Amino acid sequence: MGVEIALKSLRYHPYEDLGCARIDNHRELISGTAEVVYAAGKKQSRVIEIARKIYEIHGCVLVTRSDEETYGMLNIENARYYPDSCIIEAVDKNSPKGKREKSGHVLVVSAGTSDISVAEEAAVTAGFLGSHATTLYDVGVAGLHRILSNARFIDDARVLVVIAGMEGALPSVIGALTDKPLIAVPTSQGYGTSLGGITALFAMLNSCVPGIAVMNIDNGFGAGCLAHKINSIGL
Amino acid sequence: MGVEIALKSLRYHPYEDLGCARIDNHRELISGTAEVVYAAGKKQSRVIEIARKIYEIHGCVLVTRSDEETYGMLNIENARYYPDSCIIEAVDKNSPKGKREKSGHVLVVSAGTSDISVAEEAAVTAGFLGSHATTLYDVGVAGLHRILSNARFIDDARVLVVIAGMEGALPSVIGALTDKPLIAVPTSQGYGTSLGGITALFAMLNSCVPGIAVMNIDNGFGAGCLAHKINSIGL
Amino acid sequence: MGVEIALKSLRYHPYEDLGCARIDNHRELISGTAEVVYAAGKKQSRVIEIARKIYEIHGCVLVTRSDEETYGMLNIENARYYPDSCIIEAVDKNSPKGKREKSGHVLVVSAGTSDISVAEEAAVTAGFLGSHATTLYDVGVAGLHRILSNARFIDDARVLVVIAGMEGALPSVIGALTDKPLIAVPTSQGYGTSLGGITALFAMLNSCVPGIAVMNIDNGFGAGCLAHKINSIGL
Amino acid sequence: MGVEIALKSLRYHPYEDLGCARIDNHRELISGTAEVVYAAGKKQSRVIEIARKIYEIHGCVLVTRSDEETYGMLNIENARYYPDSCIIEAVDKNSPKGKREKSGHVLVVSAGTSDISVAEEAAVTAGFLGSHATTLYDVGVAGLHRILSNARFIDDARVLVVIAGMEGALPSVIGALTDKPLIAVPTSQGYGTSLGGITALFAMLNSCVPGIAVMNIDNGFGAGCLAHKINSIGL
Amino acid sequence: MGVEIALKSLRYHPYEDLGCARIDNHRELISGTAEVVYAAGKKQSRVIEIARKIYEIHGCVLVTRSDEETYGMLNIENARYYPDSCIIEAVDKNSPKGKREKSGHVLVVSAGTSDISVAEEAAVTAGFLGSHATTLYDVGVAGLHRILSNARFIDDARVLVVIAGMEGALPSVIGALTDKPLIAVPTSQGYGTSLGGITALFAMLNSCVPGIAVMNIDNGFGAGCLAHKINSIGL
Amino acid sequence: MGVEIALKSLRYHPYEDLGCARIDNHRELISGTAEVVYAAGKKQSRVIEIARKIYEIHGCVLVTRSDEETYGMLNIENARYYPDSCIIEAVDKNSPKGKREKSGHVLVVSAGTSDISVAEEAAVTAGFLGSHATTLYDVGVAGLHRILSNARFIDDARVLVVIAGMEGALPSVIGALTDKPLIAVPTSQGYGTSLGGITALFAMLNSCVPGIAVMNIDNGFGAGCLAHKINSIGL
Amino acid sequence: MGVEIALKSLRYHPYEDLGCARIDNHRELISGTAEVVYAAGKKQSRVIEIARKIYEIHGCVLVTRSDEETYGMLNIENARYYPDSCIIEAVDKNSPKGKREKSGHVLVVSAGTSDISVAEEAAVTAGFLGSHATTLYDVGVAGLHRILSNARFIDDARVLVVIAGMEGALPSVIGALTDKPLIAVPTSQGYGTSLGGITALFAMLNSCVPGIAVMNIDNGFGAGCLAHKINSIGL
Amino acid sequence: MGVEIALKSLRYHPYEDLGCARIDNHRELISGTAEVVYAAGKKQSRVIEIARKIYEIHGCVLVTRSDEETYGMLNIENARYYPDSCIIEAVDKNSPKGKREKSGHVLVVSAGTSDISVAEEAAVTAGFLGSHATTLYDVGVAGLHRILSNARFIDDARVLVVIAGMEGALPSVIGALTDKPLIAVPTSQGYGTSLGGITALFAMLNSCVPGIAVMNIDNGFGAGCLAHKINSIGL
Repeated sequence: MGVEIALKSLRYHPYEDLGCARIDNHRELISGTAEVVYAAGKKQSRVIEIARKIYEIHGCVLVTRSDEETYGMLNIENARYYPDSCIIEAVDKNSPKGKREKSGHVLVVSAGTSDISVAEEAAVTAGFLGSHATTLYDVGVAGLHRILSNARFIDDARVLVVIAGMEGALPSVIGALTDKPLIAVPTSQGYGTSLGGITALFAMLNSCVPGIAVMNIDNGFGAGCLAHKINSIGL
Repeated sequence: MGVEIALKSLRYHPYEDLGCARIDNHRELISGTAEVVYAAGKKQSRVIEIARKIYEIHGCVLVTRSDEETYGMLNIENARYYPDSCIIEAVDKNSPKGKREKSGHVLVVSAGTSDISVAEEAAVTAGFLGSHATTLYDVGVAGLHRILSNARFIDDARVLVVIAGMEGALPSVIGALTDKPLIAVPTSQGYGTSLGGITALFAMLNSCVPGIAVMNIDNGFGAGCLAHKINSIGL
Repeated sequence: MGVEIALKSLRYHPYEDLGCARIDNHRELISGTAEVVYAAGKKQSRVIEIARKIYEIHGCVLVTRSDEETYGMLNIENARYYPDSCIIEAVDKNSPKGKREKSGHVLVVSAGTSDISVAEEAAVTAGFLGSHATTLYDVGVAGLHRILSNARFIDDARVLVVIAGMEGALPSVIGALTDKPLIAVPTSQGYGTSLGGITALFAMLNSCVPGIAVMNIDNGFGAGCLAHKINSIGL
Repeated sequence: MGVEIALKSLRYHPYEDLGCARIDNHRELISGTAEVVYAAGKKQSRVIEIARKIYEIHGCVLVTRSDEETYGMLNIENARYYPDSCIIEAVDKNSPKGKREKSGHVLVVSAGTSDISVAEEAAVTAGFLGSHATTLYDVGVAGLHRILSNARFIDDARVLVVIAGMEGALPSVIGALTDKPLIAVPTSQGYGTSLGGITALFAMLNSCVPGIAVMNIDNGFGAGCLAHKINSIGL
Repeated sequence: MGVEIALKSLRYHPYEDLGCARIDNHRELISGTAEVVYAAGKKQSRVIEIARKIYEIHGCVLVTRSDEETYGMLNIENARYYPDSCIIEAVDKNSPKGKREKSGHVLVVSAGTSDISVAEEAAVTAGFLGSHATTLYDVGVAGLHRILSNARFIDDARVLVVIAGMEGALPSVIGALTDKPLIAVPTSQGYGTSLGGITALFAMLNSCVPGIAVMNIDNGFGAGCLAHKINSIGL
Repeated sequence: MGVEIALKSLRYHPYEDLGCARIDNHRELISGTAEVVYAAGKKQSRVIEIARKIYEIHGCVLVTRSDEETYGMLNIENARYYPDSCIIEAVDKNSPKGKREKSGHVLVVSAGTSDISVAEEAAVTAGFLGSHATTLYDVGVAGLHRILSNARFIDDARVLVVIAGMEGALPSVIGALTDKPLIAVPTSQGYGTSLGGITALFAMLNSCVPGIAVMNIDNGFGAGCLAHKINSIGL
Repeated sequence: MGVEIALKSLRYHPYEDLGCARIDNHRELISGTAEVVYAAGKKQSRVIEIARKIYEIHGCVLVTRSDEETYGMLNIENARYYPDSCIIEAVDKNSPKGKREKSGHVLVVSAGTSDISVAEEAAVTAGFLGSHATTLYDVGVAGLHRILSNARFIDDARVLVVIAGMEGALPSVIGALTDKPLIAVPTSQGYGTSLGGITALFAMLNSCVPGIAVMNIDNGFGAGCLAHKINSIGL
Repeated sequence: MGVEIALKSLRYHPYEDLGCARIDNHRELISGTAEVVYAAGKKQSRVIEIARKIYEIHGCVLVTRSDEETYGMLNIENARYYPDSCIIEAVDKNSPKGKREKSGHVLVVSAGTSDISVAEEAAVTAGFLGSHATTLYDVGVAGLHRILSNARFIDDARVLVVIAGMEGALPSVIGALTDKPLIAVPTSQGYGTSLGGITALFAMLNSCVPGIAVMNIDNGFGAGCLAHKINSIGL
């Protein structure tokens, strides 16, 4: 959608009738993420109310950083809960999104066990937005062979998302093997000087491989959005 | 180029005969930036030697973070010096790169006067790598109207690079107007709590617009590489 | 009140008879905030004792960072509890403050849902001190149109308080539209590199709009005080 | 000027004919600082070109963070150079600004000798924008008596600007004596743990006196702008 | 005790028979604090065992950072619990320490209510070690008059301990009024940019009053030790 | 001098006739350092003017952080320059200070060669203020024997000043050998993670020896002042 | 094992049949730590499953950062739990590891009581990997004599591991007494400016004794690995 | 040499007759680096005096962080200058060191061109101390193949020193291929978030490969010392 049209469509507030002045910033129309609720720090009742309203209008909804209890109370048909990434996803098969096929290919790679929650958040988000997304876990730098023996997966993808905590070296190692767009996500895994992910973040920003896109710590959702935006080009 | 082929081609060291064990990391074959010399911290004689060798082999070379004196001594036909970004670019019109037409469209936007050196580095890099790149300077947040009145430029581009120092708010403002991939580059402009660009960097990583790709401080070169990688998809 | 008179009046310790050597710094006579109790970190019994004493003397009291339980036990007529900002406010309608009308106009704007607690603290404080205060929630940078379509509210105010977490860009965007005094309050909302509000704080201090007044992280109370001081000029 | 009108007037680019796409963010029409050039980091020839153009249009110009050489070459009648704050000020006596009388009263107080450059920047800026500004130097905390014996100066002012480096305690001490709006500016004076002004900044943000407005380190210009905005209320 | 003698006496391990290789570093013979147990992070049973053993040998013991439960189970005659500072103190009246009179005068001043726990730790420690210690609470910078009206207490003391959180300005203000040794202790009170006491600490280290002794954050025990060492000179 | 008297004497501004509003904070009457000029960041002509005036009034002056050229131009009889610490000291033998004998004993110990400038600043300052001061250089932790073999020097002193850069361990090691007041001064010596002295500072604040007084980085002057204050007790 | 062979053996994934894609990075074959499970952040059931599988294959297993409950449920014969370091160790006496004798000598020294958990982790790890490991606790800098009187233990060792929190001075003091390889481990013990171990870490990195090997904060496991690698040389 | 003997030999001050109280901490007898002068921050004349004296006594000397001019003036036969690492090395062939053969094998690997100065410092230091040292430059992560094709060099060494700036990933990648002791040295190469080497340092401390020994930023000298200590074991 062009910016000129967007500027006009911005005048339309679909949720104003909700009597809910406190609508979340993640649900912007233009950026294509209008169907997403960021649940962290919101009251359960509010999350449920907004999620149902979105599902009613769009026939789909994605709730990130939620919990299983909210999922249990949401009561939307077709809803599914991802326990590792704490995401609720619901897509009506008859909605536009439900009928559309996933396209392109986003490959999400994670270094260690503890990075899986972030990796899944990225993969589910990209998938919800319309991208075909696959995952490859446990291919950390300490097991270099696993990276090399999985090279063909990289060849299959249009965009890569690489998740790593601790020293955050995996994006450099994978980035050296391909000229495809690579999105690096640092995680808060580690202790001491990992500084809650700052070390992995800064390592990624200083990669000797030029042109790596870096996200905020643990921001799998953002990585999924960017991966989908890139994956959508030319499709 | 696929990773499998790349892994094989990696065995080939084109500059070994240079007797130069100290070849720079930025010139990797796979990532498509083999023709680039990062001059900062290298001796002038070495920069000149490497740049000439690359030009001899590839018919083109890009030297970043260089100076006018080196440019004067380089003595390569067709070379051009960009004083704002301190880049030397040389492309033989009969080389493969010289014959190829620029494709796609990378739009580079910068917030303030002082961010132009980084913006130019991004634009020249993307252009050298094969992307059609245009620039839009001085559209900072303090002049919101300039952003709005330039909306059509955004509609024309496939990828955006947004450069800003100080509070680094421009990527959020522009990102809210488009669903295209946006690469944000913080600059070291500012004083006191700008912390040499850390504040702008962290602001960009925390953008309320999801999916913004962030680069290291002042890393226009990296932004140009990523923009080109994304711009190349589907072309 | 002039400083010369203030210096004299300082000799008077209204609460000494309370037998309470540990009187809070926020209740200073000169700065006009003598009727405020900062409850965080104080024992409940002490908060209740001081609040009642203040109400007895002044006919009004404001208790910040309190909880609903304390409110329930306070047992002051006319008291009201604000659950979002955790404030107790009590004003006797026959007290000087109760009879005085609110004057001027302080507009409090907040970027996201999670910033409302801080915004309400600012608005209630300014109102308690004697300013007419209104609020405008959910006008974040990601929804630029909401800012533009609310421009008339800005025209109506004498002072603006703008609350934002994450990248803290809202004060710059609003500040670019007006020459009125603007008070920016960063909030601790966000994760990873938001650093508990430091990023939003530093972004505000580096705003490209000159002359923005910045407060400590989450300090809605301070913003309310300053807004009232400014709003009082010339009234 | 109202925001509605401002949004319209924003369409007008007075300097476009300069052929100068790189116009500085500090010269915004709305915020009333359109006649100011921030010289730091700009080429001398450019500073002179812009300053003369502004003077030609507005009959006045203020150049901050400049040097005596630029002043010597500027060649504007009525121009004056302030060596402590490195400001050039020029006001044509027949221009609107030249005819208008300074109004209100901004008092600028500084703690130590080394803070005078910042204090003067604040005072000259407020004066240029139209406020009557006076200064009071060398009243640091180590000489408490000098603060107390100057209390009457505080009573005369409408707004206070208090400048301090090192531990940044002066705003708290003065703020405890008055209920007037107080703007605190940390300076980069000090060594070791003064961290280039971060310590003074954080001390000011944590003042036990509620409602102090804080600026970026060394930002006398911003303090002058804010002081003028506040001082203008009700005049 | 001289160092030469001390070096010899160091050979003597009074607690070795306890079978307790893990004896705490705070109980050194030379530095005169052999009778102190630092309870934080130690198992309750171990604290009780060591405290009783010390009391048995020395006729006195001080347990810092303990809790009321441990006090209840300690079962030492004459023991007293200080709930604000969480200290247990026990001195047998017939022990050398019990018979000795407190000497000199250490004055402990605190800025705010929340700093009292640290202030009490300093005062009780100095008292236990043999100094006469008095306290003066709630004399923060926001109430300048309270400092001035308590000037005579300062004249009575040989050493001052000044405790403050937030912006940590009190030591500068008091230090400007006296040439006596002054020990400043920052506390972790505050939020946002108080950084858990780092801001107060750095402010104290940068005091414009020369020669202030600074301690680690919340280290009332250390301040009590130093105050006693200084107070002991010439007695 | 008592605070009551001091408060009165504060009314007296000895340098007002100098026409010099910008008198430095280090020259306070009460704290006994009225004869000291801190030259760093002051113009040479101003330093010379103030220093001569002080010498004229007091018969003595100490100029810290100065240079040899200023010393050459100062032209005060009896003046002496210390090249390591960049101090100028001048005492008229017939002045009160000139006739008074140095008393007590301050021992200044430094760890490495590079710490000598700070150590000398401490020793000369303490000496100028009236203390007998001796120095012991090059007794770093890496040569433990030098510490042990110098134990008798420690026994001779009333107060210790211990200077160290890098890991700042020396105060802990010496502090474990004595119960005398010990002042620790971190220096900015080192590279990488020494962080310009922050590491040494934090190490000293965390010493396992309780009650060490810590100063700002490189603050030999402050250490000399404190040492003199402590040394003066009971003399 | 040589790298060439290792690169081949890397092709072998012993746990793939586990159906467990999320295998931990600490279990690498090459680095000799394939039998170790890092339990922190893993589900109990998963830890137990992996630990049993490893024991089944290798006849031994080490589980770090575990708890007593997991130990109770593990149900492996010969398993032992170390409560201070939270390690489970199990070695079948008939396995290759069970039959091999410990060799060489790793000495682990710790400064304070609170550092014992880290020290034990280092000692148990080195022992499990095949090194003879002994421990020496409570020899902190505040008790210099304890270091000196234990000098012979240092002479007996091939490698030293020195653990310290707070100011982290112990490695410097011990390192000055020996030319053997010394591994320093900072711990997170302390408060305020100990910054969770950063201060001890930076102090160790800045030791005036050249050539000290430093580990991440609390990383006893890493220290044990390195100590074993060094101790294995020439055996 | 044993500690018992060392403690005795410590009594001997070989350079006392130099009249030079300021002898550098790097020249300790015990740690085997008595023949080394650290020139940074020392006056040229002093460096020359000490270096000659050491050469006279020991028949060898190593001067680190020196310059070519000092080398020219040193006038010691057999001296050699290493321009990349700024080291002067001089060994008399008839001295004990001159006759001894280098033993073992230390392999020094560096990632990029700019890390060579640190790498050479490590290699020359290890060589001077008696180890056989070889170097392998330009094998950064961006060229993974260069690491793999150099695997045999790793097999030949007893100890590895791996130098890297920017994201500091190389030690992890190489460490995953070997179980030999590996010393990682971060360099200050990079810009923006490389933070002068802090990012590389923290990345190395958080390596997913357990047991990597980490040094201070740019500390090639320390790495050379440690490598030699380890390499000496069992020789």
